[in-house]
Amino acid sequence: MVQFSDISSALETQVIELPSWAFGNSGTRFKVFGTPGTPRTIQEKIADAAQVNQYTGLSPKVALHIPWDKVDDYSALRDYAADLGMQLGTVNSNTFQDDVYKFGSLTHTDPKIRQKAIDHHFECIDIMHATGSQDLKIWLADGTNYPGQGDIRGRQDRLADSLASIYARIGDDQRLVLEYKFFEPAFYHTDVPDWGTSYAQVSALGERALVCLDTGHHAPGTNIEFIVAQLLRLGKLGSFDFNSRFYADDDLIVGAADPFQLFRILYEVIRGGGYGPESTVAFMLDQCHNVEDKIPGQMRSVLNVQEMTARALLVDPAAIKAAQDAGDVLGANGILMDAFYTDVRPALAEWRAGRGLPTDPMAAYAASGYQQKIAEDRVGGAQASWGA
Amino acid sequence: MVQFSDISSALETQVIELPSWAFGNSGTRFKVFGTPGTPRTIQEKIADAAQVNQYTGLSPKVALHIPWDKVDDYSALRDYAADLGMQLGTVNSNTFQDDVYKFGSLTHTDPKIRQKAIDHHFECIDIMHATGSQDLKIWLADGTNYPGQGDIRGRQDRLADSLASIYARIGDDQRLVLEYKFFEPAFYHTDVPDWGTSYAQVSALGERALVCLDTGHHAPGTNIEFIVAQLLRLGKLGSFDFNSRFYADDDLIVGAADPFQLFRILYEVIRGGGYGPESTVAFMLDQCHNVEDKIPGQMRSVLNVQEMTARALLVDPAAIKAAQDAGDVLGANGILMDAFYTDVRPALAEWRAGRGLPTDPMAAYAASGYQQKIAEDRVGGAQASWGA
Amino acid sequence: MVQFSDISSALETQVIELPSWAFGNSGTRFKVFGTPGTPRTIQEKIADAAQVNQYTGLSPKVALHIPWDKVDDYSALRDYAADLGMQLGTVNSNTFQDDVYKFGSLTHTDPKIRQKAIDHHFECIDIMHATGSQDLKIWLADGTNYPGQGDIRGRQDRLADSLASIYARIGDDQRLVLEYKFFEPAFYHTDVPDWGTSYAQVSALGERALVCLDTGHHAPGTNIEFIVAQLLRLGKLGSFDFNSRFYADDDLIVGAADPFQLFRILYEVIRGGGYGPESTVAFMLDQCHNVEDKIPGQMRSVLNVQEMTARALLVDPAAIKAAQDAGDVLGANGILMDAFYTDVRPALAEWRAGRGLPTDPMAAYAASGYQQKIAEDRVGGAQASWGA
Amino acid sequence: MVQFSDISSALETQVIELPSWAFGNSGTRFKVFGTPGTPRTIQEKIADAAQVNQYTGLSPKVALHIPWDKVDDYSALRDYAADLGMQLGTVNSNTFQDDVYKFGSLTHTDPKIRQKAIDHHFECIDIMHATGSQDLKIWLADGTNYPGQGDIRGRQDRLADSLASIYARIGDDQRLVLEYKFFEPAFYHTDVPDWGTSYAQVSALGERALVCLDTGHHAPGTNIEFIVAQLLRLGKLGSFDFNSRFYADDDLIVGAADPFQLFRILYEVIRGGGYGPESTVAFMLDQCHNVEDKIPGQMRSVLNVQEMTARALLVDPAAIKAAQDAGDVLGANGILMDAFYTDVRPALAEWRAGRGLPTDPMAAYAASGYQQKIAEDRVGGAQASWGA
Repeated sequence: MVQFSDISSALETQVIELPSWAFGNSGTRFKVFGTPGTPRTIQEKIADAAQVNQYTGLSPKVALHIPWDKVDDYSALRDYAADLGMQLGTVNSNTFQDDVYKFGSLTHTDPKIRQKAIDHHFECIDIMHATGSQDLKIWLADGTNYPGQGDIRGRQDRLADSLASIYARIGDDQRLVLEYKFFEPAFYHTDVPDWGTSYAQVSALGERALVCLDTGHHAPGTNIEFIVAQLLRLGKLGSFDFNSRFYADDDLIVGAADPFQLFRILYEVIRGGGYGPESTVAFMLDQCHNVEDKIPGQMRSVLNVQEMTARALLVDPAAIKAAQDAGDVLGANGILMDAFYTDVRPALAEWRAGRGLPTDPMAAYAASGYQQKIAEDRVGGAQASWGA
Repeated sequence: MVQFSDISSALETQVIELPSWAFGNSGTRFKVFGTPGTPRTIQEKIADAAQVNQYTGLSPKVALHIPWDKVDDYSALRDYAADLGMQLGTVNSNTFQDDVYKFGSLTHTDPKIRQKAIDHHFECIDIMHATGSQDLKIWLADGTNYPGQGDIRGRQDRLADSLASIYARIGDDQRLVLEYKFFEPAFYHTDVPDWGTSYAQVSALGERALVCLDTGHHAPGTNIEFIVAQLLRLGKLGSFDFNSRFYADDDLIVGAADPFQLFRILYEVIRGGGYGPESTVAFMLDQCHNVEDKIPGQMRSVLNVQEMTARALLVDPAAIKAAQDAGDVLGANGILMDAFYTDVRPALAEWRAGRGLPTDPMAAYAASGYQQKIAEDRVGGAQASWGA
Repeated sequence: MVQFSDISSALETQVIELPSWAFGNSGTRFKVFGTPGTPRTIQEKIADAAQVNQYTGLSPKVALHIPWDKVDDYSALRDYAADLGMQLGTVNSNTFQDDVYKFGSLTHTDPKIRQKAIDHHFECIDIMHATGSQDLKIWLADGTNYPGQGDIRGRQDRLADSLASIYARIGDDQRLVLEYKFFEPAFYHTDVPDWGTSYAQVSALGERALVCLDTGHHAPGTNIEFIVAQLLRLGKLGSFDFNSRFYADDDLIVGAADPFQLFRILYEVIRGGGYGPESTVAFMLDQCHNVEDKIPGQMRSVLNVQEMTARALLVDPAAIKAAQDAGDVLGANGILMDAFYTDVRPALAEWRAGRGLPTDPMAAYAASGYQQKIAEDRVGGAQASWGA
Repeated sequence: MVQFSDISSALETQVIELPSWAFGNSGTRFKVFGTPGTPRTIQEKIADAAQVNQYTGLSPKVALHIPWDKVDDYSALRDYAADLGMQLGTVNSNTFQDDVYKFGSLTHTDPKIRQKAIDHHFECIDIMHATGSQDLKIWLADGTNYPGQGDIRGRQDRLADSLASIYARIGDDQRLVLEYKFFEPAFYHTDVPDWGTSYAQVSALGERALVCLDTGHHAPGTNIEFIVAQLLRLGKLGSFDFNSRFYADDDLIVGAADPFQLFRILYEVIRGGGYGPESTVAFMLDQCHNVEDKIPGQMRSVLNVQEMTARALLVDPAAIKAAQDAGDVLGANGILMDAFYTDVRPALAEWRAGRGLPTDPMAAYAASGYQQKIAEDRVGGAQASWGA
């Protein structure tokens, strides 16, 4: 097996982008619980994100969600972030909370509503120019609840048209990433339900249109690492939305539900060239912290990704290839499992110490008093949530 | 095959209870769309429910949800309903929207919070006495999101204790029905995830504690009619929450996603003695009309149940038994399918005509102008939804 | 709604190909039950297939499976079939029963084994020339059982190479159709698990390479009609393998598990231009009759496809489009459901009578004495099954 | 966290029973691959099982499958096993491979076939007396493939009757354990599909009738550790059939697909009193080694169970309870994860060394030459598989 010392430099460049909305309240259709200290503004969200980065060194970027994070002056916001050691990252559009989108946005039968949705993306692109963001991420809630409600085929054609308009607008160093999702909020069909659809749509657009893989957006039993390998092979893996799930799109802390799956995903990322300075694959979280604390929840998440990346890097490519070629099923599997079962946490603690980071980021954050401080300071105002 | 004329009297006594909340707005964690005419009060919900009954003759009962439907004077509410030809039905408790229930209600580690949840059920029982309701329905959102978050076993024991307190309080002609649910809003474990758990819990309570089967609350691929048959066999099927789903607990119109499954469920209900005046099994809807009109949505639902009941009644018990005993797979299946494929809608239209009901209830309601009227009248106030 | 008289001519050209292996014994890993009268040879299989066609008029083609159906003289076999009113159809390759394929065939790391698998397909193409078959269908059992056992990415690349060799060999009027399957017999990953993979692979080959959609080969909850619509849109839907399932690849009679799903699939086929004389989409069954009689099982299957095609043709395109465009959810859904619930069986019986076919094909076959005759005649020899 | 030194004695008494059939060939309906050295007799299977025990010290028992492992003299077989340091364990009945059971065994409509199936279990009980086995394990393939094919309710009643006859015959120190299975080989319904059904059936029998939980026999997404906790709470968890799965009943090496799930299951076993000398819960494997070597496959399996047991024992009950009671979601989860992520393999190697076992059992076995020896010696005869 590869030794930790051999991989420690490969861990240097890892960046995991944080979603601004993970710092706000979230929940289910049944209830959204509020918590003391929850940010009221995008500035407070960025401040919280900066905490995650301060203790882990893994997350110098924060993704924005428009309109939830709209401000008057993005340049000022960029400076504000920079002062906290943070950059503004992916811009996420939102065409699912306006009443006119009840029956679709980029797929709507009404050209005026479609144009409104396209215009929203134009606005997002303008923001990207101001923030220096690379990726425009499109996740669509479009779909139908009942058979016959919509024309599945026609909606797909209109989606292609709408995406073409948006793609034509993005800058030369910007990218459009199209997320797919198996179901929810639509319950009969979603317009981009699987990687195949996203792949077919972005392939029709051009080189800078890519697929976004959200790890929670698949049918039960789906082999996600296969999709990772396939998209990397096809040159179309743009970015990850990391989270974990037991049932549906539960949006739990990445690695919490099935750490071995996260390991396998990262193994295929590395094996397929999706990791490291040469790769353009963007790593991002997309999670909800419905019942747990948000800042430590995000910290736990980026640490989980880092730990599994380290484990995946420990797999010896030559050794596993030899076992695979020899048809040594247990041997090849054993090489993978050895890496997975290796407890990299002590080595990572040391690695952090060598970089001026706390050995135990969770404990260091807990001891810092930040949580208590924001709970006391952030009184009044509306706590951020998905609606604002 | 049995003829429609043979079954038409068996259709007379069918009652499908309507949930008050189906007339309010509902949605997903992403968005709740409002619609003109949505009720603001329980009185307006009952008025809308009365419409469903007026045009279909199938739904003279409306279930209440506490605290959403709390009023000062339940006796007055009962009279109000009676004037509209309606009765007040099942009382549904709610221990999932108060902040103290974030980590559980009847299962909580804190005895004070548990008692608060028990007291809420006592209040529901008091209301049942005032409304003349038979069933106290308990659906719990209790569960955890992360492995280790809670003590699965201890929670089960506490649940048993809490239920025993509640059961001790219900009247001699009242019943406690315990609903189970596979997941949501909890994502790692729910405290009553399957019929086995509900069965084990209610069996420990006594005769008037029964299982509530919500057709949308199962794992993918679950054979629901088997559970129906089993619970009837065990004498523990208390009631149904009807709806349909493609993926999770989608709460779509019953019969919309898989009409053949609804037919099979009703076939087992009938075969097992769960249908007809002798049976105490309660039929209820539990649905959301996120994108479709609510009143016609409820009408479509009760008509679907009626149509599938009629089809299921057409199966000739002697003929199917003969084919089953002979090992005639295609023959036995064919007898079932013949009944399912029989278009009972014309006969049902006639049946309705003979009872002073419109032959086409959907069209009659649409023509009535009621929808336009409530859209115009119900201006101002807060539209009812799951929060109120 | 469209009337049956309007669609009766559209039903004329429907052809549903029968798989030769459906007439042999099949089962599970636990047991294969034999039945009296089961064919011993491909000739007897064709004779049985001809019975299905004789009584239904729907199935003049029978697909071959190589090597199960190998003969010395395919030209003689073609004549034999022609005498029974049958054509030889799709040729199905088999690279899953030879010991050398334990770790893969077209994806194997060993170039010699890969070549052997390629050569097998060359042999199939030669047979196609002799039989006049249009389609070479490739379903691969390739995959792995354990994480790490194989190199997912490398296998995909080798698959692409192997397919390119095979594609280069097919004739100008022949097609290669690549089937995908979610799992089984491989349990960790399959090399062509989903439509996206099949689509990506065949797109790299050329115009005459297409996707084969087996209705039983998807993850739980997958919206199959969406895939149908998408593949038709992309011009890559080559053929169907029809069957039905409750859980996995159960290979039950098509339409038996979820008739409404079959209806929705056929609706999208028709809506997307995949039905009728202009379309090149091939309809085929791929089923197992483990416990039911095989010939009536196949008859029931083709009749189910015909009945659901008729129902799907009854949907009025203009009416549903109007409702869809108006955002009339219940109206649009109602138009679809009206067609589904229409009992087309009496009209189809009449339709058959007008074409010299028995009004009740199942009863006519049962009365013919054929089943008894083959049970008596086919004594001795080895009953055909998946092994031979 | 608890230290390894604190738990090392608790590992002493762990016994994981091996299934005799795991040493024979197995496969899917598509193909069963043979391998050199595969046993031809039950004696050779026991010899192979003894190897697993020799290198791991974990598996001194081997379960029998009747009729696959029938011999004339069970007393001699017992002595043969004892000479190899092995005991004969659970007796597994088989009512799925005789032609008369095509439509059911203990549930069959024909009393003669039911009696034959009951008599088979009587024979198994007789064998248990001769072998000194404690458990009669019943797994039924009974079920139907098509709706209407059988009377679900009637079959359940007949099952209850048949089980009562069998239960009446078992000795005072013997137990009946009833396994449940979601699907396969039956595809529409199985007669014991879930723990609830098994629980209801065995509860009706008596104290020595218990549930057998096969970890691969659940619906997708099922929380298995919840069922473990519940059955322990109800006093009805009799035994485990360990294996793992990605999709269906894949029967892969336990822990291979989701090691974290295995950890959680064992955590609930321990927390609920199902582990240790006081507990009567039997641990058994039930696996197939379709493509990997069988003896090392079984070794890997028992080692996986041991490693996860050790990890689960490391969880500090007081610490996790404190965090749970405090509503500290991340803290409580973290305590569990710390134990899971702790690499117990070095400590276990030392533990083994202290007990005269090889530190690396897999390597020691590979170096022993046993595999080569049986490959050379076991020539001729029919390799054991599910059929014999």
